[in-house]
Amino acid sequence: MADMTTLRFTKGHGTENDFVLLPDADARLTLDADTVRWLTDRRAGIGGDGVIRVVPTSAATEDGVRAQAGEAAWFMDYYNADGSVAEMCGNGTRVFAEYLRREGLETGDEFAIATRAGLRRIRFEGDLVATNMGPWRLVDEQVATRDGFDALVRLDANEEPWSALSIDVGNPHTVVALPEAVDLATLDLTSAPEVSPAPPHGSNVEFVRPLGPGHIAMRVHERGVGETRSCGTGVVAAALATSWWAGQPEPTQDWTVDVPGGRLRVRGMPNHEVELAGPAALVADGTVDLPA
Amino acid sequence: MADMTTLRFTKGHGTENDFVLLPDADARLTLDADTVRWLTDRRAGIGGDGVIRVVPTSAATEDGVRAQAGEAAWFMDYYNADGSVAEMCGNGTRVFAEYLRREGLETGDEFAIATRAGLRRIRFEGDLVATNMGPWRLVDEQVATRDGFDALVRLDANEEPWSALSIDVGNPHTVVALPEAVDLATLDLTSAPEVSPAPPHGSNVEFVRPLGPGHIAMRVHERGVGETRSCGTGVVAAALATSWWAGQPEPTQDWTVDVPGGRLRVRGMPNHEVELAGPAALVADGTVDLPA
Repeated sequence: MADMTTLRFTKGHGTENDFVLLPDADARLTLDADTVRWLTDRRAGIGGDGVIRVVPTSAATEDGVRAQAGEAAWFMDYYNADGSVAEMCGNGTRVFAEYLRREGLETGDEFAIATRAGLRRIRFEGDLVATNMGPWRLVDEQVATRDGFDALVRLDANEEPWSALSIDVGNPHTVVALPEAVDLATLDLTSAPEVSPAPPHGSNVEFVRPLGPGHIAMRVHERGVGETRSCGTGVVAAALATSWWAGQPEPTQDWTVDVPGGRLRVRGMPNHEVELAGPAALVADGTVDLPA
Repeated sequence: MADMTTLRFTKGHGTENDFVLLPDADARLTLDADTVRWLTDRRAGIGGDGVIRVVPTSAATEDGVRAQAGEAAWFMDYYNADGSVAEMCGNGTRVFAEYLRREGLETGDEFAIATRAGLRRIRFEGDLVATNMGPWRLVDEQVATRDGFDALVRLDANEEPWSALSIDVGNPHTVVALPEAVDLATLDLTSAPEVSPAPPHGSNVEFVRPLGPGHIAMRVHERGVGETRSCGTGVVAAALATSWWAGQPEPTQDWTVDVPGGRLRVRGMPNHEVELAGPAALVADGTVDLPA
């Protein structure tokens, strides 16, 4: 952690997916896993789902990131709460972009940010921040086209499984169309849903309830984490699956997705890409003393 | 919330019982329940088990608090995370006292603080902060003297109940001496223990395992909250009950109590009072923007 013990930080969240941002314009911080775990500890530290170091793209150590420097001035150096390095986080991109604007590091309504998953294009639209999440794909287009579903999900080994659709949005998702009789609000998501066939690297699982035209409610169980208040790629997958079932493989209308942490908008984009738009809040700013 | 929207704050914790402290030397803040709930929200706000407003005792609105002004310059105006006004919090007193010292608002090694439960005397001792928690009493001294226990506790309706002792430390506690065969670490405390006879206003329940002479480990289920990393009065009750069972109704030795959030020390004091000592950490300082 270099030889500094006091860091500046900003706490922010996107639909209650929350982050500790660390400004590092001079690229002097080296974050080890212990420091990330301590910063994200909700009782002993500051608390967050992850840490975002704000660093010039040209100063990134990874070649693949540095290559984005021509198009994106700032790199979203993202770490999961467990200390592991992560590619990126959909809700995190909005908070990162909001921070860049507030600090005057970006001044336009549109700009790109660098992530380990590649460039992400950002667009400010009133109170919303929109992120182009890149391309998506059905995991098994052949079966999905034939049956509308390609997987089964169950929460309880004694119950009939529910039909689901597997979608890759840079990470794996399994979206469940809940039967009408099942109440989304009271689902017990304390243990991991059982997905079959079992995805090779596990899967995030979304449970979806239609609310009206172009409007769904969703709860998500994140792989290796548990239920969360919001998951950006999960919201995208849920909207795409619902659109698929509605007979629109490429969404031609906007989808409003309500999650426990707030409301997001999903929009189909040219080239089989998809955009996620929602709020970003910068809550607190200060300094934190790292334990010796 | 007056007409200000940006507040200074400090985040701190005592054995991972954590608090948002709000300096208010001029007694200008009026905290409504919504603001407290928002500040303690771990994702949308800053996050904490409670909020402590740091205000001169002479400026307190409650007569019973203002009457302490001659002995305690500062009032620990404490709020639970749900927005309700609370009397005080054992772990919070250490964090409050540590803050007063760091800010130069108190300069001695010993001073008193004002709380809604009355004066609390604080003593700094190396890295520890010691709080006189005031008097304690057995809830049913007659039965406790005869049987050593006065209550039964069970976590599982299908299992034999465990014997327990009821102790009042300003709030109600039921302390369980775990049978040797039961593993403290793997107890399932996700639902509220069943206490009989049922305490009229519920009870905090402590599960205790002796580790050696004067040394116990403890987990606690807090009334209306669930399991927590630490509970100051629960630690005191656990040590007092163990001492009672060991044949020392008034503890003549110090007790070391290990909780998931750290280690605390309990010491019997004259006049049937008890002192709780442990660490206090001030983690971060900054400003927070309240939502409109």
